[in-house]
Amino acid sequence: MVSTKPPSGMRDYLPDAVVKRRYVLSKVESVFQRYGFLPLETPTMEHLSTLLGKYGDEGDQLLYRVLHRGERLGRTLAQAKIDLADLAELGLRYDLTVPLARVVAQYGHQLPRFFKRYQIQPVWRADRPAKGRFREFYQCDVDITGTTSLVAETEVMNAISEVLAELGFHRVNIALNHRVVLRSMIEVSGIAPALEGTALVAIDKLDKIGADGVRAELMERGITSEAAQQLLALTTVAQDKDNAATLQALRTMLPLPQAQQALSDLETLCQLTADAPAGPRLRLTPALARGLSYYTGPIFEVVSDDFSGSLGGGGRYDNLVGMFSNKQVPAVGFSLGLERILLLMEEQQMFPPLRMAAEVMVCALPDTPLAPVVGLVSRLRQAGVTVELYPEQIRLGRQLAGADDLQIPYALIVGPDEVVQQRYTLKHLASGAQQQLDEAALLEALRPI
Amino acid sequence: MVSTKPPSGMRDYLPDAVVKRRYVLSKVESVFQRYGFLPLETPTMEHLSTLLGKYGDEGDQLLYRVLHRGERLGRTLAQAKIDLADLAELGLRYDLTVPLARVVAQYGHQLPRFFKRYQIQPVWRADRPAKGRFREFYQCDVDITGTTSLVAETEVMNAISEVLAELGFHRVNIALNHRVVLRSMIEVSGIAPALEGTALVAIDKLDKIGADGVRAELMERGITSEAAQQLLALTTVAQDKDNAATLQALRTMLPLPQAQQALSDLETLCQLTADAPAGPRLRLTPALARGLSYYTGPIFEVVSDDFSGSLGGGGRYDNLVGMFSNKQVPAVGFSLGLERILLLMEEQQMFPPLRMAAEVMVCALPDTPLAPVVGLVSRLRQAGVTVELYPEQIRLGRQLAGADDLQIPYALIVGPDEVVQQRYTLKHLASGAQQQLDEAALLEALRPI
Repeated sequence: MVSTKPPSGMRDYLPDAVVKRRYVLSKVESVFQRYGFLPLETPTMEHLSTLLGKYGDEGDQLLYRVLHRGERLGRTLAQAKIDLADLAELGLRYDLTVPLARVVAQYGHQLPRFFKRYQIQPVWRADRPAKGRFREFYQCDVDITGTTSLVAETEVMNAISEVLAELGFHRVNIALNHRVVLRSMIEVSGIAPALEGTALVAIDKLDKIGADGVRAELMERGITSEAAQQLLALTTVAQDKDNAATLQALRTMLPLPQAQQALSDLETLCQLTADAPAGPRLRLTPALARGLSYYTGPIFEVVSDDFSGSLGGGGRYDNLVGMFSNKQVPAVGFSLGLERILLLMEEQQMFPPLRMAAEVMVCALPDTPLAPVVGLVSRLRQAGVTVELYPEQIRLGRQLAGADDLQIPYALIVGPDEVVQQRYTLKHLASGAQQQLDEAALLEALRPI
Repeated sequence: MVSTKPPSGMRDYLPDAVVKRRYVLSKVESVFQRYGFLPLETPTMEHLSTLLGKYGDEGDQLLYRVLHRGERLGRTLAQAKIDLADLAELGLRYDLTVPLARVVAQYGHQLPRFFKRYQIQPVWRADRPAKGRFREFYQCDVDITGTTSLVAETEVMNAISEVLAELGFHRVNIALNHRVVLRSMIEVSGIAPALEGTALVAIDKLDKIGADGVRAELMERGITSEAAQQLLALTTVAQDKDNAATLQALRTMLPLPQAQQALSDLETLCQLTADAPAGPRLRLTPALARGLSYYTGPIFEVVSDDFSGSLGGGGRYDNLVGMFSNKQVPAVGFSLGLERILLLMEEQQMFPPLRMAAEVMVCALPDTPLAPVVGLVSRLRQAGVTVELYPEQIRLGRQLAGADDLQIPYALIVGPDEVVQQRYTLKHLASGAQQQLDEAALLEALRPI
């Protein structure tokens, strides 16, 4: 058994810990925002040329370096006759499912018996970048461990469906299939179990390369023309039929007892979701295969007629935790890919207006004593107003232009007289309308609703 | 000039992009929570033994591996006669300041002229782990680029002070010093400029090892006994005095014009914050040195008499962006360390009660048809109630115990009769009180305020 502890100096944050961290972070973030700071995020990895020499010798020593990959690394290793294992023992998270399996193996007794967890974090894959495919990207996962009940599948499918509805994806479906159904189709087609994996990879491409393409690929992968034809017939027999008709067709064509049980499970999932968010989206799809090898039961994928590819997927994986522990723990999960969702929402203009600007830019005129202005700004922020303070006492026109650039709706103009009289000019930048207000009236005018 | 683009396949998220990503993530998260999923976070790095063999051959190829460090790597490199540069070109983020400098160099024209950004992300250092010191940890940074105005220092010090106040840190101060004051103290003490860095490292330890310790260390570092004595006198002359007295003492002892200007800047910072959150916390501290070499002006650190070490720090760094660009861009920033804050808040019981549990556990009795129960659960969640659905139809006692384990206050008990009559039993688990409610009354009873 491999150790299931996190690497030295790194931590798993179980739910109690995450909640505390978020409490602090939400306070930090809300204050930063009230001060007019804007959010930035940068990649986990930087070129070493960016990092080296910025933190002193000690910093250079403490940097984590990421090993070259592919040919470049291969050449070095071959030349130097060293083994990859001599160079690296740690790797970057590749998905959120394997870390969950490790966590369940490590903390089993501390976790709820049915551990329903969500996890939203970046993962890394050294894949060739392409449109919508990045080397660092976010996944949003829900999983339930500890039960073989189909309620678990129902819960994750409903949760994902409700997310999609809230984001405005109304013409999006959940393709549903079962690993045991796939295996039975392969068996009934007369394909050797050893070729199951390779056959599934080909079948999974049906909507991309069509039936002829899949047939050619199956034959390239060593499957006879007859078997390929039969498998294609099975995976496409019920195309464009409703779920009941698809189930009926598969029941007839797959008489094996394990296939009948798997089909009953799929039927149950259709029933359980009938009056729930996933119901109207479910599409039994015999050609759905899902690449990853760890699935053992129902599998799902978010698809649409409006675009190719998928917004996410998942399935049951009852053996993965067992790879980290002597105890088998059944599990089911569903993962949304954030990047694809963002790309589609951008293309289809699905975002509501998202305001980020401060409510008011405070502009101190030249020769205004600044300390009372900073005091006023502090009190406005403490009352919950997001306030930007122009950092330089240059002429007003340039300060107002700065407010405009930041799409800030109001400017508060403070000159030496205003400081003495404690009455300030609030100017609405779009209309040019302005009024003189004391601090109480100002708070009233700007107070967030 | 090094390239300031992010590594291939990775992205900088400028504020517009972050806001869109957060919009989506907040929807995703709120739905997941309403379904009773709990948050988990796992480290960016995993042992390769955890990752390998879980994603198929392709996955193994696409993994990012992190290079060994220290002696272990040194042995391999020496043996194989290869150079570190042949093995790695990417490294993990070490702080949030250098990435900001790169971003400002890369996107200068797209960013506001005065870019006020906050950034809350993990960073990695291959340091020896110890209590409160991790290899993966979060920083919370605010920075303002594009101005030399002391308003920028004022803004970041006020923002950090307000965060500390909101979290409940009332006996926490901001130590304030200036790099030019430090340099002048070194010069006046007769220490060669080449020894400035090493002298500052020793001085920075004053509160840990005391004056005798610092004197010994200065002499070890090649500084004469007389110079060490003089430097110590300068850095400690005003200990425990108020800011005005400290300024007065330093003005007398540091007649150099650049020191007088730096002292005026510090005085201005005291004035500007007088009526603002940072004011009561500011402590002029001539012994404050701050390790990082890139600071050029005022420097700050969050300290307290109640604990050793620091909750964060920062300062002005007017030359860092210039290391990535032909253009010099002045900047000032302040960073909070999340881990230390969490540790102290835990020790001093500063957290309010943080509820994470669902409001109600729905328990379906054996032989209850499940589809209508799933429908009811879905409607409660869509109305905003956080609902847990017990996944297995076992006997009620065990389901209620499960609700108790999760600290869920209510159980909703649904049997076959309840489904028919559409009236359900809501049981308050602490008191045992229960009532029969139809769906409308149930929504009324559970609706979030």
